[in-house]
Amino acid sequence: MEAQRRIDPVNCSVARALAVVGERWSLLIVREALDGARRFGEFKARLGIAGNLLSTRLNTLVAAGVLRRVPYQDPGERHRFEYELTEQGLDLRITLVALLEWGDKYLADPQGPSVIVRHQAAEGDGACEEQVRVVLECSAGHTHVPPQSIHRTPGPGARFLGSS
Amino acid sequence: MEAQRRIDPVNCSVARALAVVGERWSLLIVREALDGARRFGEFKARLGIAGNLLSTRLNTLVAAGVLRRVPYQDPGERHRFEYELTEQGLDLRITLVALLEWGDKYLADPQGPSVIVRHQAAEGDGACEEQVRVVLECSAGHTHVPPQSIHRTPGPGARFLGSS
Repeated sequence: MEAQRRIDPVNCSVARALAVVGERWSLLIVREALDGARRFGEFKARLGIAGNLLSTRLNTLVAAGVLRRVPYQDPGERHRFEYELTEQGLDLRITLVALLEWGDKYLADPQGPSVIVRHQAAEGDGACEEQVRVVLECSAGHTHVPPQSIHRTPGPGARFLGSS
Repeated sequence: MEAQRRIDPVNCSVARALAVVGERWSLLIVREALDGARRFGEFKARLGIAGNLLSTRLNTLVAAGVLRRVPYQDPGERHRFEYELTEQGLDLRITLVALLEWGDKYLADPQGPSVIVRHQAAEGDGACEEQVRVVLECSAGHTHVPPQSIHRTPGPGARFLGSS
């Protein structure tokens, strides 16, 4: 079709990322974990997800390094595991804020957003509490790069599709 | 479990957004559309996706307002449709850059990222071509808000779960 060489889309990190979290429940589980859920029953009750499906998704997220299992034991109960976000899992925060913004813009409740993400300044810096947004900036120091002013170039790991 | 009232997670825009694009193929279709794919055959060849699955996903994305169908006719061929991103679809760019960054950080090819997103400055501003990153900032003007310094508060559309 096109004469120019094209980056093999299968090798792109978007595809790799989606292979881990590109499924509705996975990112919702991460969202609930960010919001404090740790135990199987908490995820199940908050999300209204079937137990076997939740179990599969939690296992996938643990295997992928997004969640880790942490043992706990309630008095008189047997040992159980709860789930904690790893650094890799915590790093999905910006993606979730980006998705939230998109959802708020196009799909929110008529009454407005259900959730506002706010800046919680560090102790000593005083409270901020202003709304947080996702923006693009570039290494040259340009802030607020418009999303229409970006383009993709091949990186060091790029593979190319044969000309067809 | 908890005494404090909790925002109903089903009503959150993340959940609404994922109902539209929370599935691996959907965001990959958007990615290819951003990269210039328009025709059924292009999406199919680039993604290696089964035709019936692609057809379903394209229909869902059209129904959700992410893509629109545009008629075209090649010489000697019958009328067909190609797919174009709407404004709503184009607005998924930041989410895709966020996912790409996360994938690059944790899942990239050992040789490095397959794709680098670069700043293409407007005509007259000169070329920039520096790498673009996703960052958080708040309405008070704090830039580079650390993702660990954000928290969720109820918005105007929040519904609350009964205390259980």
